[in-house]
Amino acid sequence: MTDLRQQALDYHAYPTPGKISVEITTPAETSVDLALAYSPGVAEPVREIAENPDDVYKYTGKGNTVAVISNGTAILGLGNLGPMASKPVMEGKALLFKRFANINSFDIEVKHKTVEDFVNTVANIADSFGGINLEDIKAPECFVIEKALIERCKIPVFHDDQHGTAIVTCAGMLNALDIQGKDIKQANIVCLGAGAAAIACMELLIKCGAQREKIYMLDTKGVIHTRRDDLNEYKKLFANNTDKRTLEDVIAGADVFVGVSGPDLLTAEQLKLMAPNPVVFACSNPDPEIKPEIALATRDDVIIATGRSDYPNQVNNVLCFPFIFRGALDVRARIINDEMKIAAVHAIKDLAKEDVPAEVLAASGDKSLTFGKDYIIPKPMDSRLCAKVAKAVAQAAIDSGVAALEMPENYMAD
Amino acid sequence: MTDLRQQALDYHAYPTPGKISVEITTPAETSVDLALAYSPGVAEPVREIAENPDDVYKYTGKGNTVAVISNGTAILGLGNLGPMASKPVMEGKALLFKRFANINSFDIEVKHKTVEDFVNTVANIADSFGGINLEDIKAPECFVIEKALIERCKIPVFHDDQHGTAIVTCAGMLNALDIQGKDIKQANIVCLGAGAAAIACMELLIKCGAQREKIYMLDTKGVIHTRRDDLNEYKKLFANNTDKRTLEDVIAGADVFVGVSGPDLLTAEQLKLMAPNPVVFACSNPDPEIKPEIALATRDDVIIATGRSDYPNQVNNVLCFPFIFRGALDVRARIINDEMKIAAVHAIKDLAKEDVPAEVLAASGDKSLTFGKDYIIPKPMDSRLCAKVAKAVAQAAIDSGVAALEMPENYMAD
Repeated sequence: MTDLRQQALDYHAYPTPGKISVEITTPAETSVDLALAYSPGVAEPVREIAENPDDVYKYTGKGNTVAVISNGTAILGLGNLGPMASKPVMEGKALLFKRFANINSFDIEVKHKTVEDFVNTVANIADSFGGINLEDIKAPECFVIEKALIERCKIPVFHDDQHGTAIVTCAGMLNALDIQGKDIKQANIVCLGAGAAAIACMELLIKCGAQREKIYMLDTKGVIHTRRDDLNEYKKLFANNTDKRTLEDVIAGADVFVGVSGPDLLTAEQLKLMAPNPVVFACSNPDPEIKPEIALATRDDVIIATGRSDYPNQVNNVLCFPFIFRGALDVRARIINDEMKIAAVHAIKDLAKEDVPAEVLAASGDKSLTFGKDYIIPKPMDSRLCAKVAKAVAQAAIDSGVAALEMPENYMAD
Repeated sequence: MTDLRQQALDYHAYPTPGKISVEITTPAETSVDLALAYSPGVAEPVREIAENPDDVYKYTGKGNTVAVISNGTAILGLGNLGPMASKPVMEGKALLFKRFANINSFDIEVKHKTVEDFVNTVANIADSFGGINLEDIKAPECFVIEKALIERCKIPVFHDDQHGTAIVTCAGMLNALDIQGKDIKQANIVCLGAGAAAIACMELLIKCGAQREKIYMLDTKGVIHTRRDDLNEYKKLFANNTDKRTLEDVIAGADVFVGVSGPDLLTAEQLKLMAPNPVVFACSNPDPEIKPEIALATRDDVIIATGRSDYPNQVNNVLCFPFIFRGALDVRARIINDEMKIAAVHAIKDLAKEDVPAEVLAASGDKSLTFGKDYIIPKPMDSRLCAKVAKAVAQAAIDSGVAALEMPENYMAD
């Protein structure tokens, strides 16, 4: 562990501090080059954009740029450490945008007084970018912030901790239920955790067919029910009219467990209480709500997914966020709406059912991958994801009327 | 001209829209790489920075990143065309930062309601960067904005249209006066124009020895004098207790003319009225206050500089801004103070007196360059500038007590 620690620190310190740089994409050697890049040549695109605002997409990098923006109030599982401490995470996200979807991305850490101050700051700079990826902002402020920014900005605003997690979770869940022979409409679902990711996951599961009244959500005080008077408006939507109060109460007979909480909070005894052929998504990271080896030793009819790369079935946001933005940017979607999110769910879900080519196996370090209990969701290194997800998202944007452009010719054909 | 127009538009549209991209500086191919770049490895630098805020310079790109920020209220000579139309200029500036000083730079265009709103927005995001270069913000708001941001930010904030122009102008002016055998303390100075650049140039000339009462500044209403009641507080500082009212009145006997106004506003007849061995900086771009060929045909004792690359003596901000930030970043200066600006003036000034190596001649496309009337200031493509200016600026930051770091060992020694 000390070794990984030093390796990670060295990785961030060398060859230069950080992980991203800005580079020049046009010729910039001679004074002739620079007369086009800057004065006097640059006046020409300025005039064009002043006359026709859409030309900003033609003559600047706006259309392929996503800002990764945080206030550092909920950094990874580490909590509220402030904007500066979040910078390595945000630079990491920018790196992933580039690595997986060739999107230019940089990070902005915001210091602010109030939620309104944060929203106003981000809205004021938003036009500089093609999209905004919000990151590591604590609940419930993140809900207010995202909603306000979607209203004020003309570009897609997407809080990945909510929706990226939800999309990947739903994709894996639909496959897992399919394998277990369960119908999502009938599934009894326990959600341990009631933060941003938990709420977004449950909302999207509902949009994929789950029944709200069959969901039991728990926060640190236990089951969220209609007689509690300490619920914010977001938790209230999941208040269940029930006498059940504890995880023990609700896990009995449950088909699905989704953990977005903390390490080892689901015991083997509790797992035993679940319905036959249960699905357990133990997504607390790095330490899941129940270790896969314990789950599988407890009962062999369970499908288990975690957030970890060293077990099968990794629920990893990187399966979604680079590509949902890729698709949104490429048809210049004004927002990322539910239709686009659901299209991403299905594209990710369906890809797991396809044969896995040798080069994908090589990249992910697997000998074989066959759709089933140990492979319900594609691997992060699966290079087919970009085309599949981006195309589905772009098509959904067009079909739902939020795209300014048509589908590019031979889009993602390659 | 149509051809240059199309060339400039094509330059901005291809190979991809815009001129800059974000690239990855660390290994990011395998899942092992990504476990260091992002989860779980990234938690380590997060923890370090949370404990020791200065470590943000060790583990992130902050220390070598400059944001180029504008509201588009004074774009080049084109006026107030709004934030979006300014984007090609800001991306161009980012390109120049990279090209000349290897600084990672990207642009942020700010939409805002009030000056306070702009200041608050920029101050809220400032910690993300190592420095802020303000650009193309109109006067007098730019003065208020820069002052407020310097107070609120812990990093250098520099309005290049003011100070970059002033530094390069002063460097050239000191050399020109030297060649003409004039003492800046005795010089009668006419400044045509009273915007951000004009005021900054005159303030810095005063810090370099010029006498405030020997400066006549003119705005669109003529000479700025003590009996005018239409002056903002910045112009008021240059209100001269004089009966002179017109350019004609003040140009007679003047040693120095600085034009930061518009094309052809200094006539040959007016030039004839100047003192012997005059210095004319006709910096309106692209069309100077008087064309060099007209000036030189009118009198052969004149030294003339312009903003254009196709005449000798180009006053070009790129001689300064990449390097003043390079020096400031490298010793982590908290601000860019007068000492650093004056150090830059002298470094640029002195470089023009040095022999010009063959590779610099080749890069600038000149056969020979010898300090004199036609070579009072280095060429933008002079690769010696970075080391000379950055080192002088870094030393001045250290000497004036605003640097957090000592001079790096063998700094800029190549």
